[in-house]
Amino acid sequence: MPLPADIPEVVIDRLPIYYRWLARMDAEGRSTVSSQELGDALGVTPAQIRKDLAYFGRFGKQGSGYSVVRLVEELRLILGLNRRWRMVLVGVGRLGRAIASYQGFGPDGFDLVGVFDASEEEIGGEVGGITVRDVREMESSLGAEPADIGIVAVPAEAAQEVIDALVRAGVRSILNYAPITVQVPRGVRIRRIDPLLSLQSMTYHLSLETDERESAPLQASA
Amino acid sequence: MPLPADIPEVVIDRLPIYYRWLARMDAEGRSTVSSQELGDALGVTPAQIRKDLAYFGRFGKQGSGYSVVRLVEELRLILGLNRRWRMVLVGVGRLGRAIASYQGFGPDGFDLVGVFDASEEEIGGEVGGITVRDVREMESSLGAEPADIGIVAVPAEAAQEVIDALVRAGVRSILNYAPITVQVPRGVRIRRIDPLLSLQSMTYHLSLETDERESAPLQASA
Repeated sequence: MPLPADIPEVVIDRLPIYYRWLARMDAEGRSTVSSQELGDALGVTPAQIRKDLAYFGRFGKQGSGYSVVRLVEELRLILGLNRRWRMVLVGVGRLGRAIASYQGFGPDGFDLVGVFDASEEEIGGEVGGITVRDVREMESSLGAEPADIGIVAVPAEAAQEVIDALVRAGVRSILNYAPITVQVPRGVRIRRIDPLLSLQSMTYHLSLETDERESAPLQASA
Repeated sequence: MPLPADIPEVVIDRLPIYYRWLARMDAEGRSTVSSQELGDALGVTPAQIRKDLAYFGRFGKQGSGYSVVRLVEELRLILGLNRRWRMVLVGVGRLGRAIASYQGFGPDGFDLVGVFDASEEEIGGEVGGITVRDVREMESSLGAEPADIGIVAVPAEAAQEVIDALVRAGVRSILNYAPITVQVPRGVRIRRIDPLLSLQSMTYHLSLETDERESAPLQASA
């Protein structure tokens, strides 16, 4: 299957959201869906949905909507969800443990295959059913048993070093929970999960509304 | 200060990232920065940075770069970080506890002022230094002491109900950690924090690379 390489990142970010909703519709026995309904459910305009899916150039018939089963299957292929991915977790503090106990990975093809930490107290213990290994042995461990994805849940000051080690060990995709911007070489993809960044983009809107409310009666003086 | 209302959401999402990096530069005593340097540090093109900041129409001088201190101060105002925001957390499982122990909220103006849960075992206990209250009393509690932001860390099946209660209690911004798409009325902003969605957009690229590697020697047959 030809996969277009120049899809904007914002479009790729929406595909898993489409996939998840459509897979649920499929499980409920729905056969077709319109861009309008998909858009209403997900807070995206129908025009945007048609444009997003058109990048992959094969879905939908004018007037009759999209075939749910076909769209689900195509999105599965496009997103690489037709195979299993090997993940390692670094850091088993509160957050790392919460991540390890997340039930959503397995059913969607993500297997946690290794857990690492720097603390002597944690090494040898068990997290998510997996024995915690010494992060200093991570590179050689991954040399023997490679992983596709690294999840980093270490303190900010340790993040760059851990991520460098993951990259040296051949990991090409990193999910970073550490509250810091880190550098990765070209060809390695990193996503940041940071509640503060999400909060700060919401307060933009909250401020705007507060300002509007406060200034509305005084509009003439603006 | 006039705040433009029609800034694309993707631009607003980048502003906290600019803010964080610039605040660090400011703390290190840097006085100016070019869009090139900012772009290199954050993985955004310099053109995109100039375009993003131009929405707010007041920064930077051609040739001499941006004043760091001025940009930090303007971004603080634009993002509403010049005041404090009241947050409540719903759900004190592993994930909720990890969120409550996150050290990044306070220094950036976000105060956790209430914690709620449905479980009898948790109610009355303490999480993040705050007494856990019954989620069934949340609406009346927030009526007396309003909150700006709700953080939802409950199981998927409880999320819609909890979010409905937050909205009824006047909360206008919600950070949803539950792995489910929920509906909110117009005017309420919701952000989803979901590692699976981030992983699934990374596997798009991983698949693409795998396919390219596998098909490269056979390019003539494509």
